[in-house]
Amino acid sequence: MARDTITAGMVVIGDEILSGRTKDKNIGYVAEYLTQLGIELKEVRVVSDDEPMIVEAVNTLRARYTYVFTSGGIGPTHDDITADAVAAAFGTVAEHDPRAVALLQARYKPEELTEARLRMARLPRGATLVDNPISKAPGFRIDNVIVMAGVPSIMQAMLDAVTPELKTGVKMLSTSLDAGGLPEGVYGTPLAAIAKAHPGTSIGSYPSFTGTGFKNQIVVRSKDEDRMMAAADAVRAMLTELTNTDKNPL
Amino acid sequence: MARDTITAGMVVIGDEILSGRTKDKNIGYVAEYLTQLGIELKEVRVVSDDEPMIVEAVNTLRARYTYVFTSGGIGPTHDDITADAVAAAFGTVAEHDPRAVALLQARYKPEELTEARLRMARLPRGATLVDNPISKAPGFRIDNVIVMAGVPSIMQAMLDAVTPELKTGVKMLSTSLDAGGLPEGVYGTPLAAIAKAHPGTSIGSYPSFTGTGFKNQIVVRSKDEDRMMAAADAVRAMLTELTNTDKNPL
Repeated sequence: MARDTITAGMVVIGDEILSGRTKDKNIGYVAEYLTQLGIELKEVRVVSDDEPMIVEAVNTLRARYTYVFTSGGIGPTHDDITADAVAAAFGTVAEHDPRAVALLQARYKPEELTEARLRMARLPRGATLVDNPISKAPGFRIDNVIVMAGVPSIMQAMLDAVTPELKTGVKMLSTSLDAGGLPEGVYGTPLAAIAKAHPGTSIGSYPSFTGTGFKNQIVVRSKDEDRMMAAADAVRAMLTELTNTDKNPL
Repeated sequence: MARDTITAGMVVIGDEILSGRTKDKNIGYVAEYLTQLGIELKEVRVVSDDEPMIVEAVNTLRARYTYVFTSGGIGPTHDDITADAVAAAFGTVAEHDPRAVALLQARYKPEELTEARLRMARLPRGATLVDNPISKAPGFRIDNVIVMAGVPSIMQAMLDAVTPELKTGVKMLSTSLDAGGLPEGVYGTPLAAIAKAHPGTSIGSYPSFTGTGFKNQIVVRSKDEDRMMAAADAVRAMLTELTNTDKNPL
């Protein structure tokens, strides 16, 4: 029996991504990770450290998808405003959470537990903690929104920590076919016909430029293995036929 | 005289980015490129090959920012629907553009100019062409929306091609200070005070995890060099004081 489709949105928070100073590494990681889990990432937004922008993105995506994952803006400095912004998105406030404070007290000596570090224990009222095995300051979850760090290694650990409590759907299967030297412009029309003739599959063609020409991959995706294989067979037959035609031009 | 602020949004189009199959390289490139030009990238959305999603993203961002740059979905295959979607966003249709057809006719022999390849000459009515020196099939511009390829080398060439016709603003200047071994939790509170005392600047603190600890950089940004230098001096003095305190703990 097909289970419900489980979907996700992602909000990447940080001026440094939009200025180009930091190159995001979290979108690709989360995309691949969720696909493996059978959760479909449907939309990503990158926004600055600006409360109204964060609120808009979180509120739009949490209404639209099963889960929203955010990365960035939960550190100890003044530009880390994600906890306050997510609280505002839920119409509540961020305040020191006793469990989060305890985690920081276990890590830092009393004289090291600065006001700045205590900022990292401020969570929206009603949030639960997401474990951070690396630097202790936790991420958090409120309703369907999961708030993670921006530093990739910490974000990845938080994603692992929250995974057991996620609903997962039927995993999207995929198979990749090398188009050999055939250009998209040669197989585009027959490929469209194959895509149309195979409902329940999604067929994409992905060129990469080698410097002298294109190298193309055709990817067939489906939640149903039989449908995927049937479409892939049709693509393979079409590629073989075109390759032979190409070798023996009229 | 300060010119107007020039802003941009970006829409990255493609199922392959959201499935994690392809790791986006265009966001970081466009972000850094626009920053150099004095155009502020304010928001990025990654959406699937789905017309309503593309229309929503393009229409929201084109109303909000000076320019919208899109990448992806302008090739010859059935999953390349950006031209139709952008046309729909403007309430018009995509049709074969004689100038774009001529470019393809110059590149391909008549028997090579397949229906699929001719798809790449379909532009929204009213669009102008953006040169593609690499594979000829053009990008396009309609009003403030600039539509580019997803393949990074081609997108970069199209960005170069469209640059001469862009309005640019006052360039954001930035200077980066190494926080030495000081943790964010130690300088977070004084840094917030410096940020508050220096209007017209934006101060960010960016940790990266080395595997054993954090290495932090503080970045001061401003459109005014004097303000930037004054804030950077204050940050430097604060870091020196904290480092000395750290060396001589009470």
